[in-house]
Amino acid sequence: MAVGLNRLPRLRPVAGIRLGSAPFSSKGTHRNAITVLSIDEGASSAAVFTRNAFCAAPVEIARAHLHKAAPRFCLINSGNANAGNGVRGVEDTLLTCKALAQHAGCSVAEVLPFSTGVIGEPLPVVSIGDAIPRAIALLSPKGWAKAARAIMTTDTIPKGMSKITQIQGHPITVTGIAKGAGMIRPDLATMLAFVATDANVNEDGLRQILQYAVERSFNRISVDGDTSTNDACVLIATGQSQLPCIDSTDSIEYLACRDTVTEVCTHLAQAIVRDGEGATKFVTIEVDGGRTEEECRQVAYAIAHSLLVKTAFFASDPNWGRIVAALGRAGLKGLNVNRVSIFLDDVCVVERGGRAASYTEAKGRAVLSQDEVKVRADLGRGHASSIVWTCDLSYDYVRINAEYRTW
Amino acid sequence: MAVGLNRLPRLRPVAGIRLGSAPFSSKGTHRNAITVLSIDEGASSAAVFTRNAFCAAPVEIARAHLHKAAPRFCLINSGNANAGNGVRGVEDTLLTCKALAQHAGCSVAEVLPFSTGVIGEPLPVVSIGDAIPRAIALLSPKGWAKAARAIMTTDTIPKGMSKITQIQGHPITVTGIAKGAGMIRPDLATMLAFVATDANVNEDGLRQILQYAVERSFNRISVDGDTSTNDACVLIATGQSQLPCIDSTDSIEYLACRDTVTEVCTHLAQAIVRDGEGATKFVTIEVDGGRTEEECRQVAYAIAHSLLVKTAFFASDPNWGRIVAALGRAGLKGLNVNRVSIFLDDVCVVERGGRAASYTEAKGRAVLSQDEVKVRADLGRGHASSIVWTCDLSYDYVRINAEYRTW
Repeated sequence: MAVGLNRLPRLRPVAGIRLGSAPFSSKGTHRNAITVLSIDEGASSAAVFTRNAFCAAPVEIARAHLHKAAPRFCLINSGNANAGNGVRGVEDTLLTCKALAQHAGCSVAEVLPFSTGVIGEPLPVVSIGDAIPRAIALLSPKGWAKAARAIMTTDTIPKGMSKITQIQGHPITVTGIAKGAGMIRPDLATMLAFVATDANVNEDGLRQILQYAVERSFNRISVDGDTSTNDACVLIATGQSQLPCIDSTDSIEYLACRDTVTEVCTHLAQAIVRDGEGATKFVTIEVDGGRTEEECRQVAYAIAHSLLVKTAFFASDPNWGRIVAALGRAGLKGLNVNRVSIFLDDVCVVERGGRAASYTEAKGRAVLSQDEVKVRADLGRGHASSIVWTCDLSYDYVRINAEYRTW
Repeated sequence: MAVGLNRLPRLRPVAGIRLGSAPFSSKGTHRNAITVLSIDEGASSAAVFTRNAFCAAPVEIARAHLHKAAPRFCLINSGNANAGNGVRGVEDTLLTCKALAQHAGCSVAEVLPFSTGVIGEPLPVVSIGDAIPRAIALLSPKGWAKAARAIMTTDTIPKGMSKITQIQGHPITVTGIAKGAGMIRPDLATMLAFVATDANVNEDGLRQILQYAVERSFNRISVDGDTSTNDACVLIATGQSQLPCIDSTDSIEYLACRDTVTEVCTHLAQAIVRDGEGATKFVTIEVDGGRTEEECRQVAYAIAHSLLVKTAFFASDPNWGRIVAALGRAGLKGLNVNRVSIFLDDVCVVERGGRAASYTEAKGRAVLSQDEVKVRADLGRGHASSIVWTCDLSYDYVRINAEYRTW
């Protein structure tokens, strides 16, 4: 069902990163697997996490561990989110970190844990512990594609991308994998993303690159407006390329590295929307002519979150009245609706707040009959703009979310 | 499909109010009817309207007319919202007001127009004009039930309620009708409500009663989180009962009248949710233990708007993890999740932020198998509380909204 997503592209190894994935048994009918991502000594790492107050135990611990030590391992499990499990959840996640630390010979604080799946079920600690040596035995620089599959939950297709760029004559690789599907909205999503590069960037610079990239990618997508308890995005720079360390955030090298990471993150973020639960359409919502970027984003999200807009897209119905209504309730002060224009791709649908004279239903239907559609709203009161990617709302969204967790 | 809604109860006439409804022809396949509600001279009226910036032409005009004159007529049409039609929309609505004013022998400013239906189609002015004399010919104090049907769009059942209360030995009648179905959320909804009483209340007092009642009824419901361009709620006091004029807002008479109006509005608001598009469950969300009513409402709406929570309810799945996740993303500062408890009816599901020791899946399923469910969240940090009514999200919501407007 994923819109315009083909099979996983070739994922290039990143010197200094190895991955191993292994299934584990659990009572659920869903995918259950762990992935161990090993990071060579000397790398820099940065991460951003969900802002949900009910964040999951692994998020709390990953955050704490990242403050204490440079991570050597990520331990990711699918099938169980270990969220809403109170104190026991924290203890369970720590047990799995300890198990990995013992096998790998590192300290517990050097392990970052990540979980995705059902909320409120105890983490199957024993099964995960059993799977850890199997995953370690499989560690390989070529493990990206298998890991992209192992971290999936309701995703229908694995998501990944590699990009090689030349900086000062040195090839730099950026490879990333992600999982998403439901509970996707800004402030991160039920989304896990792991991106690594062999560039040499210090931690401060890396944190800035991650912020920049996430703000333009994962924080610009919406499937259902829900923010998960478990979201995380990790960026690792192993420093094993021949390019000298990037120290200055003003340098061309820094910008080249930042833009490549952003490109990979944008691809991954869009892939999450394309594979949104039940998605049949990929919708780009661009809002121009605002006073501030913030107000453009506010309008874009009001449109992206409207169930009426999303069901109209599902029906390929150019029901622009619903777009207008969503825009109108976005809460902009002093909006002069008579200056608002709305376009579906290049077709002007609304001008000066009313139906465009040149618009015909047939033109609107032609645009909406495509798998990929762009909605552009011009607020007519400034020069700022913002963009958000979303998908439609179909029967399948309801089916998937009414059936998920039915064992 | 409406949850726990039986057929329309007996609607009592309100002295001084007459209603007449007549169908009109239009190209749509939907219900098209007008209703004329006539108000005897000497009545007080108050109204609240949508806060959507893209409010419909009739909303603009009704607001303006209400400032100019005491209304003598409401002119309501279903089938067409006359929203998003720019200047032409305003002209068209004025034409229909003029047509009614001519037939009825009043000034144009004494007519309040209301429209509900499809956005962005021109108002069928000629057909409405033709129907006006037919509706006027049918004006009757007993016209409430027919009007409740005539104002419906995707509603499956007409909504109305009467309540007679004794104040100082005088019977006071409050009768109201409403329509809703989709695009329902706070700040009013795609909702029209007309409530009248034969009590004698001045305009100031009436405005306060309306604010009070709406805040506790129509502003406490959510079907899909969308705010319509056309919402309006009108309250009329004809003053034709024997009870002397209620002048003081401190008097027992005022409070009795206010509470009766609130009771009628609450019934109508809940009826809108019970008949929400595709609704199979009526869900009460009560949030207690907050620092302020505002933050309780914020949490209640975060839960009510979560598609994941709503699809779980549809599946009768006690997926409390989704409730926890929605609560966590409500944006409360400094929320200590370890103090949060969640109940499904009387079953404690979450205590101290984790699954309650006494909770079993069977207990949760038993609650969720009912048509009416209460979710209660205790934030454990104060004494404020708030309540919101919502419904589940079903296949039918998607079907109705993917098919609506398909001619």
